[in-house]
Amino acid sequence: MNYKNLKTSQLEKELTELKIKYETFKSENLKLDMSRGKPCPEQLDLSMGILDCLTSEDICKAQNGTDCRNYGGLEGIPEMRAIFAQILEVTPDEVIIGGNSSLNMMYDTVARAMQFGVPGGEGPWGKLPKVKFLCPSPGYDRHFAICESFGIEMIAVDMKQDGPDMDLVEKLVGEDESIKGIWCVPKYSNPDGITYSDEVVDRLATMPTKAKDFRIFWDNAYVVHHLNEKGDNLKNIFEVCKASSNIDRVILFASSSKISFPGAGVAAMAASTTNISQTIKLMAVQTIGNDKLNQLRHVKYFKNIDGINEHMKKQASIISPKFDVVLEILEKELESKDIAWWNKPKGGYFISLNTLDGCAKKIVAMAKEAGVTLTGAGATYPYGKDPRDRNIRIAPTYPSIEELREAIEILAVCTQIVSIEKVM
Amino acid sequence: MNYKNLKTSQLEKELTELKIKYETFKSENLKLDMSRGKPCPEQLDLSMGILDCLTSEDICKAQNGTDCRNYGGLEGIPEMRAIFAQILEVTPDEVIIGGNSSLNMMYDTVARAMQFGVPGGEGPWGKLPKVKFLCPSPGYDRHFAICESFGIEMIAVDMKQDGPDMDLVEKLVGEDESIKGIWCVPKYSNPDGITYSDEVVDRLATMPTKAKDFRIFWDNAYVVHHLNEKGDNLKNIFEVCKASSNIDRVILFASSSKISFPGAGVAAMAASTTNISQTIKLMAVQTIGNDKLNQLRHVKYFKNIDGINEHMKKQASIISPKFDVVLEILEKELESKDIAWWNKPKGGYFISLNTLDGCAKKIVAMAKEAGVTLTGAGATYPYGKDPRDRNIRIAPTYPSIEELREAIEILAVCTQIVSIEKVM
Repeated sequence: MNYKNLKTSQLEKELTELKIKYETFKSENLKLDMSRGKPCPEQLDLSMGILDCLTSEDICKAQNGTDCRNYGGLEGIPEMRAIFAQILEVTPDEVIIGGNSSLNMMYDTVARAMQFGVPGGEGPWGKLPKVKFLCPSPGYDRHFAICESFGIEMIAVDMKQDGPDMDLVEKLVGEDESIKGIWCVPKYSNPDGITYSDEVVDRLATMPTKAKDFRIFWDNAYVVHHLNEKGDNLKNIFEVCKASSNIDRVILFASSSKISFPGAGVAAMAASTTNISQTIKLMAVQTIGNDKLNQLRHVKYFKNIDGINEHMKKQASIISPKFDVVLEILEKELESKDIAWWNKPKGGYFISLNTLDGCAKKIVAMAKEAGVTLTGAGATYPYGKDPRDRNIRIAPTYPSIEELREAIEILAVCTQIVSIEKVM
Repeated sequence: MNYKNLKTSQLEKELTELKIKYETFKSENLKLDMSRGKPCPEQLDLSMGILDCLTSEDICKAQNGTDCRNYGGLEGIPEMRAIFAQILEVTPDEVIIGGNSSLNMMYDTVARAMQFGVPGGEGPWGKLPKVKFLCPSPGYDRHFAICESFGIEMIAVDMKQDGPDMDLVEKLVGEDESIKGIWCVPKYSNPDGITYSDEVVDRLATMPTKAKDFRIFWDNAYVVHHLNEKGDNLKNIFEVCKASSNIDRVILFASSSKISFPGAGVAAMAASTTNISQTIKLMAVQTIGNDKLNQLRHVKYFKNIDGINEHMKKQASIISPKFDVVLEILEKELESKDIAWWNKPKGGYFISLNTLDGCAKKIVAMAKEAGVTLTGAGATYPYGKDPRDRNIRIAPTYPSIEELREAIEILAVCTQIVSIEKVM
C-alpha cells in the first residue's frame, strides 16, 4: 500500500481511520520520554557490583603505589589507562583518564584549542577570524552545541551508508584552511547506527588538509556497545594516522557511561604523545587529578576488555529486544508505504527514522501532543536545522518494552498522518 | 641571641657549629617531601566509611527522585547542595556541585569569563586588550598558575595580618577598569593561615570598582578546617555583597578534598542566581552532569554540617600536633635570633615562614640538598617571584611527626646558616 500510488479518496479514508487511532492514543494521557539515549534502570542494575568493589577494608592503592584517595595522578591510574588502551586500541601512555564525562573531555579539548591552540598549529584557534568544523549529519546534537557555544561555524556533511560523504569532506578540508576539525561517531553512529567503512577511515586519516592543525574528534562512544554477538568492525584510525605521518590528527574519546553508570562512570581520551603532553601540561593548571577511587572501582569490577565485553552482552540482552520492537512496528506500519526509511543498527543507542521531506517537525509535534517526547526534530543537524526536515532520532533504551511499543505505534500513526497530508 | 647584635667572631663560631649540624643531617640521606598541602594517610583513614555508604543494596536515588546512577542533575543533587549551602552560608539554589576538584571549578569559571564574559560585563574578557587580577601575596600558587595560563596579568598585593592591603586594593580596582578579579583564600589563608577581618570583608564587598564585571574569587578551601576547638570566624561576604547591591561580585568555592578524600571528594561553587544561571547554561554544553553517586556517598556519610564539623575535629586531632611541632622548633631555634617571623594559624594547612630578605631561595635549596623538599621559594608569589625572596611555605600535614621534627630542624639550621651569612 504505497501511499504515493493511492487515489485521493483512498488516502482520505486511510487518514480518517488513522486520526481516530491517534485520538484514542491521545485520550490515554501517556507520558513517555524518549528524547535522550539513556540506559534503563535494568541496565544500571547490571553494574551494581561496582559499588561493592571498594570498601573500608581496601587499601585503595593503584599498581604504581599511588594512594587513590589522595591528590595526584593527573593522567589516571595505570590499570585504568591500560583498560581504555585496550578499548581504544592504543598504548596506555597514549591515554588520559578523565572524570565521569567524555563530553567534558571533548568540550575541554575544543576549549583548549580555542584558547591555546594545538600542536602543529600557529596559535589559538580563537584568535583566527573564522574557525569551521565539519559536522557529518545527522549527528550528535551535543557535539554541535559545543561548536555553537564557541562560535565555530558548522558545515553539515551528509552521512552515507558507510560514513560521511568523503568526496565532499576531502574537497572541503583540502581547500579551506579555516576548517579545523570534524566530529565523528565512527561506530554505531549517533543517530544512524552505522559504522564507518575501512575506506572512510583510511580517507579521513590520510586526506590532505589545508589546515596543518586539523583534528578529527573521534567520539567512539559505542565502541563496545554491540546489540548482538556479531557486531561491526571499525578500522583503527590511529594506526592509519601514524602510518601516514598524520599521527597528531586524531583524538579518540570513550567512556564507561553506557557500560557502567552514566552518572558515575569513567571517561578517557587518547592521542599521540605530542597531543597528550600538551593536554597534560594544560590540564595540570585545571586540576590536580580526577577521581582515582572511581577508576579503581571500575578496574576491580571489569578487570580488562574481556570483562567489559562480557558485561556488554548482558546489556545487549536487555536493549536488543527493544530495538527489535521498534524495527518490528516500523516495518509493519511503514515499510510498504514508501514514506519512511531507517537503518537496522548492530549496536549503539539509536534508530534514525527518515521521513518524507518536510514532515519530521510535524510528526514530532504530533507525537508530543499524544504524550511521546522524542528528540526535537532538527536536533541531529547543526544549528538544529535539518535542511530536509525529515530526520527523527528514536532512543529505544530507556522505556520499558510495553511503553516503547505504545510510543512507536503512536510515532507510526503520526508519521502516516503527516505523510498522507503531505502526499495529498 | 639576636644575630644582628652579635660580633663577627661570635657569628663565625655559631656558623661553624651550624655547618657541622647540617653536614650530620645531610649524611642521614633523608628524603622528605613537604612541598604540597596533602593530608596524611591517617587523615584519609578517617573517611573510609564513605566507601561503605553505597552498596549494591542501595536504591541510589536522590531526595528529588533522581536516579544518581543515570544522566542528569547538572547542578548537583539537592541534599548535597544543601550541605554546601550550610558550609558556605548561602541557600541551596545558589550552589552548583562540581566534580572532585574546586580548582577545576575555579579554572572553568575563569575560562568561561575569558571565552564568554560574565553577567554585567561587556563580553568576553579574552577579547579585551588586557585583563588583570589582584593577587594577595603570599598566596596560592595554583591560583596564580591559572592567571598565567590565560595570560591574565597579575598584580601582587601585600597580605597584612587581617587580609590583603585594602588601601591598595581599593585604589587599584577604583582606577583600573582592566582589573577584573581578585583571588582570596579568606579563611586560614594559603600560606599565611590568617583569616580576613570583618573590615576587610566589608571593604571587598562594598568598594567601588571601575570594572562593572569585577569578580572576587572567594576560595574558601579551609572553611571548616580548624586546628582547635576555637577557630576563626569569617564574615559572610555574600551577605554584604547582597546588601550593597554587589550581589554578582563574589563567587565562592569549597570542596571536601581535605574533609573526605583529595582524590575523590566533592567540590562546589556558590554565587548569585544570575551568576549561577549563566554558569549552568554554559556548563550544560560541557557536561550532562557530575558524579552523583559520589555526592550521595558524601551525603549519607556526613549528613549535614554538624557531621562535617565532628569529622573535622578528628582531622584536627591528627594534624594539630604537627603544627605544634613546627611551631615549637621554630620558636626554639629561631625566635630569639630576629631572623624569621611566622604566624600561628588556627586552621588551614600551612605555616608561612618569612626569613630575612634575600634568603628564602638559598634556604630552600640547602634544605633540598639535605633531603627536605619544600614548596619552591617564590611559588607563593605571582610568576614565582617573591620580590623580597623571603617567604617559605611549610606544609606540616603529610609527614609523620618524627619526619616533620627532623625536617623542621633541618629547615631551622639552614635558615640560621643562610641568615648568618647574610648578616655577616
